[in-house]
Amino acid sequence: MSNRIVTISREFGSGGRTIGKELAAKLGIHCYDAELLEKIAQESGFAEEYIAEHGEYAVGGRWISQALSARDYCGHSYQDELWAIQQKIILELAEKESCVIVGRCADYILRDKADCLRVFIYADMESRAKRIVEQYGEGKMTPEKRLREKDKRRAAYYQFYTDVKWGVVQNYDIALNSGALGIDRCVEILAGLY
Amino acid sequence: MSNRIVTISREFGSGGRTIGKELAAKLGIHCYDAELLEKIAQESGFAEEYIAEHGEYAVGGRWISQALSARDYCGHSYQDELWAIQQKIILELAEKESCVIVGRCADYILRDKADCLRVFIYADMESRAKRIVEQYGEGKMTPEKRLREKDKRRAAYYQFYTDVKWGVVQNYDIALNSGALGIDRCVEILAGLY
Repeated sequence: MSNRIVTISREFGSGGRTIGKELAAKLGIHCYDAELLEKIAQESGFAEEYIAEHGEYAVGGRWISQALSARDYCGHSYQDELWAIQQKIILELAEKESCVIVGRCADYILRDKADCLRVFIYADMESRAKRIVEQYGEGKMTPEKRLREKDKRRAAYYQFYTDVKWGVVQNYDIALNSGALGIDRCVEILAGLY
Repeated sequence: MSNRIVTISREFGSGGRTIGKELAAKLGIHCYDAELLEKIAQESGFAEEYIAEHGEYAVGGRWISQALSARDYCGHSYQDELWAIQQKIILELAEKESCVIVGRCADYILRDKADCLRVFIYADMESRAKRIVEQYGEGKMTPEKRLREKDKRRAAYYQFYTDVKWGVVQNYDIALNSGALGIDRCVEILAGLY
């Protein structure tokens, strides 16, 4: 496999998805995120909304209880099925082309299977709060509470399927504080490394 | 204060000190590490060996018990005194010149007090083990045990004086895996950021 993949894990509100998109545009390769979600939906036959609701972004303990209770006769849940499909698609993408993949445990799925640059994007609470309010507007919860909830969900999802702790720097090749460095500088550094 | 300081925290054996030195040479500024140790020794009147033994590199719980027991009538230990002197010197250095400072909680000491690029250098166990055997030869303990011991000491020292957890990526502007990226690439990225 001679393709080179950039996997981006990120704290919610850190601009990791934007960095992924801008990096991919700069490198002339695809960035898979919403696109990947769509691909998963098409292949699995699940409605895209279902995946959006029950995939990486599912609410707190709900999918965990589902993963543990709503199992078929083999003991598999829908969540597990999604994970398997997603794994297959990410492996196929890496086989097919150089690309940027944001989220979805791609770093873990491609470990030892592709030439990856494993990136973690994070930022201080203040920058992230400002960013999510700008991007998604005000919500019922405070921005800080929304950030903590989302991070918790990402961490839980990641750990459940990978048995690896999310956001521990030793699992990445480079970790960038987008709040301190700025989005453009992060893109520049990663393009330079690629 | 218009000086720009690079503070480097690092896992033992990750090449953080080498990166600091090469970066400083490339930027034409000083790197404080052994030099800083010497400066502390001169100012404090403590023998350099004493500091080397009881400073950042002190053995496990020994200095902690000392910090808690061998106190003067004000409740201060030698360790606390060292910390105070070191703090003073680092603040003076940042006031005086742009420089690279490796270790010694400089990132914490200079927080909100200087224009800092806060760097964390880490690497996988295998690269670090290889590096310390090359640099320091074989020891009585396995390289892995030596690495874990040193990291534990650094973390304990850092946490005791700063109340902040050492090596948590959110406390840095950038974190680089020198095992994956290589020393030269790390120097290049940091020089570019500076």
